[in-house]
Formats: sequence, structure tokens, C-alpha cells
Amino acid sequence: MKADLIATRHAILAGQTSPQAIAEACIDMAKSTRCQHAFLKLTPENLIQKAQSPQNTAAQPGPLAGLAVSVKDLFDVQGQITAAGSLVLQNRAPALQDAQAIARLRAAGAGFIGRSNMVEFAFSGVGINPHHGTPAAWDALTDTLAGGTSGPHVPGGSSSGAAVSVATGAAFIGLGSDTGGSIRIPAALNGIVGFKSTARRVPTRGALPLSTTLDTVCAMTRSVRDTVLAHEILSARKVPQANKPLSAYRLAVTKDLMQDGMDKGVTLAFERSLTLLRAAGVKIDEISLSELKELAPMMATGGFSPPESFAWHRELLAHSADQYDPRVAHRIQRGAQMAAHEYIQLLEDRKDWIRRVEAKLQTYDAVLSPTTPITAPRLCDVAPGAERDAEFFRVNALLLRNPSTINNLDGCAISIPCHAPGELPVGLMLWHAAMHDDTLLQLALLLEPLLQKT
Amino acid sequence: MKADLIATRHAILAGQTSPQAIAEACIDMAKSTRCQHAFLKLTPENLIQKAQSPQNTAAQPGPLAGLAVSVKDLFDVQGQITAAGSLVLQNRAPALQDAQAIARLRAAGAGFIGRSNMVEFAFSGVGINPHHGTPAAWDALTDTLAGGTSGPHVPGGSSSGAAVSVATGAAFIGLGSDTGGSIRIPAALNGIVGFKSTARRVPTRGALPLSTTLDTVCAMTRSVRDTVLAHEILSARKVPQANKPLSAYRLAVTKDLMQDGMDKGVTLAFERSLTLLRAAGVKIDEISLSELKELAPMMATGGFSPPESFAWHRELLAHSADQYDPRVAHRIQRGAQMAAHEYIQLLEDRKDWIRRVEAKLQTYDAVLSPTTPITAPRLCDVAPGAERDAEFFRVNALLLRNPSTINNLDGCAISIPCHAPGELPVGLMLWHAAMHDDTLLQLALLLEPLLQKT
Repeated sequence: MKADLIATRHAILAGQTSPQAIAEACIDMAKSTRCQHAFLKLTPENLIQKAQSPQNTAAQPGPLAGLAVSVKDLFDVQGQITAAGSLVLQNRAPALQDAQAIARLRAAGAGFIGRSNMVEFAFSGVGINPHHGTPAAWDALTDTLAGGTSGPHVPGGSSSGAAVSVATGAAFIGLGSDTGGSIRIPAALNGIVGFKSTARRVPTRGALPLSTTLDTVCAMTRSVRDTVLAHEILSARKVPQANKPLSAYRLAVTKDLMQDGMDKGVTLAFERSLTLLRAAGVKIDEISLSELKELAPMMATGGFSPPESFAWHRELLAHSADQYDPRVAHRIQRGAQMAAHEYIQLLEDRKDWIRRVEAKLQTYDAVLSPTTPITAPRLCDVAPGAERDAEFFRVNALLLRNPSTINNLDGCAISIPCHAPGELPVGLMLWHAAMHDDTLLQLALLLEPLLQKT
Repeated sequence: MKADLIATRHAILAGQTSPQAIAEACIDMAKSTRCQHAFLKLTPENLIQKAQSPQNTAAQPGPLAGLAVSVKDLFDVQGQITAAGSLVLQNRAPALQDAQAIARLRAAGAGFIGRSNMVEFAFSGVGINPHHGTPAAWDALTDTLAGGTSGPHVPGGSSSGAAVSVATGAAFIGLGSDTGGSIRIPAALNGIVGFKSTARRVPTRGALPLSTTLDTVCAMTRSVRDTVLAHEILSARKVPQANKPLSAYRLAVTKDLMQDGMDKGVTLAFERSLTLLRAAGVKIDEISLSELKELAPMMATGGFSPPESFAWHRELLAHSADQYDPRVAHRIQRGAQMAAHEYIQLLEDRKDWIRRVEAKLQTYDAVLSPTTPITAPRLCDVAPGAERDAEFFRVNALLLRNPSTINNLDGCAISIPCHAPGELPVGLMLWHAAMHDDTLLQLALLLEPLLQKT
């Protein structure tokens, strides 16, 4: 893994490297085959300009020091077209102003290296884009380049390019969004850190919506401390330092829902992680959370994203449905069927469910689960094509299951890599209810070095 | 008008009267023909007990000093049945705990005199209840008793009994709710003060919902200072004292929508009020607010209440629709038709509309409008009966039009009496966007004595 942002900033301040040299290395990586399909548009001039700006050559540069940030294609950047990975929006007018998250990153000294590829309109967790190509999962790509014959693994989505940009070193922060796992799934499948904060922590203004109820603006990085920095900038607040030792935290695991259908790679990495943490003195209780099994029936009509995105796409679909990825159009159009009272009832049922899950969690600091129960599938098994749709939807549901539980909880969650060298990436997810962000981040800072001993 | 709560509390502290004497006078009034149909159930034992409790006989009684508060039938009171003026819920189980607003009033020393009558499920602004009878508007009743031959005037709704309880003196505070004007309409029609705070200021837990988007828990009183006191208790915070003279406020009036269809009584009182205020040095600009005219088309499908209440009533209606007031069942059932994406679009359209109206209002402290464009209609013209439904729905729409504009704005508004002695009651509404509650209350304290000079 390349150096993280904070280490790089230190190296610049110590005179060991320069913002320009770092910017050029990022641009070289972004243009290399390893980043194929990861970017929809590169903006190296912005990054170079930031690296050379007096703000970042001074003795006290901004928190991001002009370092590279990639921007998921659903954020408004002044003067650029926001197409959300689609064809149907690629000729719309450029954005008149920055999304609020972009403005905050820009003010903190970010250099925007380019717009990252994504699942069209962020509508799935696999990471496939039939219009612009699908980037390969980073660690799995190494395997392919080394002579694997089954082709690349999918990067996970919907923030597919964001994850690859960060994992390869083309960017230090991948700005994205997480509605059902779109930050945590690709983070897990690419071996990096992905944090979905409590949704209300970061304004969504200027981000093209998928679900106005669930959308969360957040980011991926190469370390937990970089994630803390990115979250502080995006949420415009400080995360306090932890004031207690690891042994004072009380963690939980649950077999309910979260560990169903784990493949061999995830089982191995997840169980080894629990053993390692317990050996280090971490208290982890096995708890019952049968409420998690209520979610699938509650969301059987498709949940919030189909009706909420249909409201946004209705007119566009009416005249241009043929320009959409059929797998995406199919799911959005499903939203046309829901009645208002069903939607309102869903909001009420969710509120009641959240209340009951929160009651179960109140004596714990975090729950540990695998981010996804499976490692990255092969692209050849789920690539565009009606004959692979069944497998695509099966895999998509598996990838989204655990992360989306936390979106439905209105909670927060961080995915940290927990695989050993030579294994396919696996994410360990720490999660809790709304507004427990700080505890999760403090805990993740403590757990990260333990997990990396493997 | 009887003495207000604060004056009564002072008189008790000065030894001029006793809590028991006041309680007994309230109970006598509540049992009199003047309060016919105003209460669904009297609980004099609670009031007497509160009046005799050591808390209220001490030198420093609670803020409400054991004085009478009436409770709209949609609030949970531990041990009582919450039927919301309906027949269909009258045999349900008693509430296990107090609604949050009830708990706050109880802790402040309220004596609950009884459950006040209301429009079934709060679903209209006229104040008619075909199951339990319709109380007569207070001032208009005097006219009838004095020999008027056209019968009583309606009290306005949906908090019909609450208004009559306060106007007659049976209670000092009428706890109610305001979803489209249910506090302000009856306040205007009964010559008392009604304040609809910003919805989020007071928790709705334990209040039977009409519209989860618009419902506001609030109250009526006989003076603005009592309204400030009631709001401080309900919202669990203090309203700061104003620190500027009346001449430093900037007010607005608008002809757009708000003054359409005013009858003679309202025109006279409203224009006289503006003249009086201007003569007292109040700056009032005439402004254009054409956005207000967008609301009727935006809400043409019925707005938020039909689908939100249908979600709550669906099962009950499926087997017991015949027990509902047909005028209420008709409007709730209309909510079954709306699609989820239409509802979601309505939420988005409303958000955009609020943003535009707020931009227009930002240089003003409040807007002045008639609370309702008409004085209280005669019951005989709108009484239950299909042959009067057209007139009922016409009058209902007129009464709701101005107040509901502020609910849709997510704003706050206070209705103060502005009629002269001998005239039918007319309300002057001061209103603004969300969270301007304190300015409105401070301003209302200054305007109230000017309006009462008439």
C-alpha cells in the first residue's frame, strides 16, 4: 500500500518530496492501465495548479496540502458536467457551483485529479458500468496481470473508480456516496478504508440523489487516520481524541443475518480478526440481533431508493429509458409502483425498527461484521448481458446486504481491511446507530494496527 | 374576557383568591350550557386535586399553579382513552403513558379539567363533530342567547372544544394541535390567542397523527403572555425578552392570496388594525409574495394529510369506514390514490418553495394577514348532511387557506384578536418561516395592547 495522505504531507513538510512530485506520480498512475476505466475525466491541470499554489508551498499548507482527491461523477464541480456515470446526462449544462462537499474539500486544499467512474446513478453494489467500462478491483488486478486466466474481479460499487483511484495511489481521498454500501463495498473489495458517517453529518447539496432518505456523502482513504481527516473536512467539525484504552471498549458480534453466506476467504479473515482482537484484550460479546432479519421483509417492495429515484428520473425515463443501463432502469422503474401510503408506512416501520435496534445496541461501542460476505466476484460472471442478470442480481444482493442494513438503521460504519497478504481483500465493518461516528473512528484507529499484524 | 393565567396566578399569590375557588369556577363553567359539546369528558377530580396539592398551595407554586388546562382528545393521557373525537376508537385500551406534551404540562403544575371535543381525527377547519355535537363559537353564542334567530356559529376546528374552553374561562390553556390551522382558526373565531410554533419545537410523541409532516403540538390562551408561558413549557425552553422598540421591527403585508375573499367583518377589522399599527409608528411594507399562489396547484392532489393519515387509518377504514364521519372518511380515503413518487416529489417541491418564500421574507420580522378571511359561519349552513356538503367544503377551504399556508411553509404564526367589542371575532395573524417563533412572540406582546385599544 502506498503512503497515506498524512504521511505524505509530513514528507513534504520535511522536504523529502514536493507537492509537484507527488502530483505527477498520481497523474502517472491515473493514466496507467492499472487505472483503466477508473476515471471518466482527468483534470491534471487542477491538481498541478493546487500543488504549485502558494497555499501549499508555504510552511503551513491547508490540511490536504494540495494532494490528489478523486471526485465521484455524481458531485457538482463548478464548470464540469455531472453525469453520474450515465450517457443520458452527458450533454447537460455544466454545474454552476460546487457541491457543498466539494467546496469544503477545495477550501481545505484538495487538488481534484478527476471524476471517478461509478455505477450509473449509483444504483448497485457490484461496480459495473456498461457505458464507460468497469475498472478492475485493485488487488485482484495484480493476480490477473500475473497471469490469472479468469479475468479481472469487479471493484464493487457504486463508487468503483473512487476505490481504485485510492487503492492504486492515484488519489489519497476518493470522494463518493453511500446509500446502501457504495463506499464500504468497494473499500472492502479493494483493501482500503471506507467510512459511511451518519447521513446528516455531511450536507448532500450538489450531489445527484439516489435516495434522499439514505444518501450519505463520504469518502475512502488508505488509512483510518486519513478517514478521520476526510470526515472532519466533510462534516466541518473535529473528531475528539479517544480518552480510554482498547480494553475499555465493549464490542459485539452477531450471527443474525450478518454472517450468513460467507465464502471461504471472508470466513477465514473474519474469524482470524476476531481471534486476533480477543488475543489483544478486546472484549467481544456474541449477541442476538434478530431484528436484523426483519429488514428483508420490510424492504420487500424495494425500499426507499426505487420510489425516491423514480421521482427524480421520471421525466428522463419517459423519453430516454433506452439510454439507461437496463439493470438500472429496471430497478428505478420499479419505484413507479409504490403507493404513497406504503412509502409513509415504510418510513414509520423503519423508525420503529431503528428504535428497537438502538435499544439492543446501547450497552455496546460497536458491532463487528464482515463488510461483505464474499470477496470480489469475477467480472466474467456478472458482466452486462441478460444471460448473466440472475447471477448479477444474486451477487448484488449479497454485497449490499450487510452495508445497507446500516443505511436503513440511519447509522454509521467503517470498513477496515482485515485480509492477510496474498489473500483477496476482505473488509471488517465496525458499525453502530446514528451519531456514534466519533466512537467508531476512535475505535478504528486502535484496531487498525492489530488487524494489520496478520 | 376573563383574567388570564398569569393574572390569576398573581391574584392567588396575593391572597385575593385561592386555587380551589378558581378550580371550582372553571368546573362550573365547563358544566354550563355555554360549554355544551366543548368537552367529551370532564376530569374535575384531577383539577381539584392539583389545586389542593402542596405544590400549588406553597409560596412558590409551579408555573401553572394547578390552573385548568383542557386536553384535545387526540393526546394520550395515562389511563384515559384517546379517541380523537371518533366513535371508531372509543373502546380502545387506555393510554399507558402521557404524551410528551402532557407530561411537560403536568410537570409544570397543570390541572387537567377534561378532554376537549374536536373534529374527528382533526380533519377539517370548521369544527363540526357529528358524533358528539358541535360546540358554539363563544362570542357568537352570546348573540344567539340574546335572541339571534339563525342559530349558533361554528367554533372553527379542529380544536373546537379547546377554543371554547379557553374563551369561556373553563380553562386557561387549551392544548391542541395545528396541522392546517387547527389552533389558529378556532382562536380567531372565538376571539382568543392561538400560536402555532415551528413544528419541530414541540415533540409529537403520544399525539394521534393527522400529518406526520405538518402536525404541530401547540395551544390557545386568553393573552399573548399566557401563550409565551404555554409555549415555553411545551417546547422546554425560554423565550428571550425583546430588546428593541416596536419602531425597530419591519413588518409586511401582502395582497397575494392572503386577502382574497375577505368578508365585511374581516375587511373592517383587518384594515382598522393596519391603520392603528401604522398610527402607532409600526413600519408595514406592502410586498409581493406571488409564491403563495403556487401552493394551491402544488397541493392539488390533497397535500400531505390524505396519504399520511391513510397510512395510519388503512386497516381501521377497511373494516369500520361506516363508523367515520363521511366527510372525514372521504378525505382520508383520497390518500390511497397517491403514488409514492408523487408524494416524494411533493416533499421536494415544498422544500424548493420554502426556500424561495424564505428568501423573500428575510428582511422582515413578520407578515400580517387575516387569520381567516371570514368570520364564523352559521352552523345551520354547514351542519352534517349531504345537501350541505358543497357549502361545508367551500367554507372549510376558505378557513384553512391562510393558516395552512404557514404549515406548508414549515413556519410559525400567532393569531391575535383584532375585532372591536360587538363585532364577531376576527384574528390578525403574524407569521414567518421556521424558527422565527421568538420574534413573533416578542412582537405579539407589543402589538396586543395596540389592537385592544379598538
